[in-house]
Amino acid sequence: MKKYHPLKLVFLSLIFGSLLSLPAMSQTNQQMHRIAKIKVDTNQLEKYTAALKEQMTTAIQLEPGVLSYNAVADKKDPSQITIFEVYANLEAYQAHILTAHFKKYKDTVKDMVLALELEDVNVVCAAKKPGF
Amino acid sequence: MKKYHPLKLVFLSLIFGSLLSLPAMSQTNQQMHRIAKIKVDTNQLEKYTAALKEQMTTAIQLEPGVLSYNAVADKKDPSQITIFEVYANLEAYQAHILTAHFKKYKDTVKDMVLALELEDVNVVCAAKKPGF
Repeated sequence: MKKYHPLKLVFLSLIFGSLLSLPAMSQTNQQMHRIAKIKVDTNQLEKYTAALKEQMTTAIQLEPGVLSYNAVADKKDPSQITIFEVYANLEAYQAHILTAHFKKYKDTVKDMVLALELEDVNVVCAAKKPGF
Repeated sequence: MKKYHPLKLVFLSLIFGSLLSLPAMSQTNQQMHRIAKIKVDTNQLEKYTAALKEQMTTAIQLEPGVLSYNAVADKKDPSQITIFEVYANLEAYQAHILTAHFKKYKDTVKDMVLALELEDVNVVCAAKKPGF
């Protein structure tokens, strides 16, 4: 039987170990990215924005699986809101929509939202300055 | 004439100095946020994505005023790309579109992009986990 140098065995073990762990690593990166497009009643825009802010900050504070919200408004039509949402995974999102703060938000804005479109997306690429 | 304690004068100077500097501070926060919606020729999607990634990473590396890019694709139609872009200010964006890497990207993708819609937006609110 061919003899291997002990260091070579260690090296091979590390290589195979890394290969075996790859599927597990990729499975943990199951972030859920979504774009929500919301048309708000112009007359209730201020109230809507307040409710949205409260929902977002509460979810980020209380829910480990709610990672990021970015809400922007069209400069030409501020009642057209777009929200970029990131959740740790599908389960985190499913838990989120059952929380008291999300239910309160949905109830508060039900007569303020004229249209809602949800688009599930995959990340193509992201690049940003360090710390941004 | 009423006498003031020297420390009180220092304190008042600091207060007035802060008030005077407020307009200047708010003027420096002129970040430009934009959403680009791009419909790509499905047959050229891979080539388009490669060109987009090269443009984004080069701009972030070379241009101080290009702060962040997030490009995502509709899960139901991956040829429908949405890019969320942040520049330090309008001047940074105007300088960006004159760079060699941006011109190269525009030239490369001119026959791949079927439709392009640009939406200038204002931030409504943002909340995210620390470090995200």
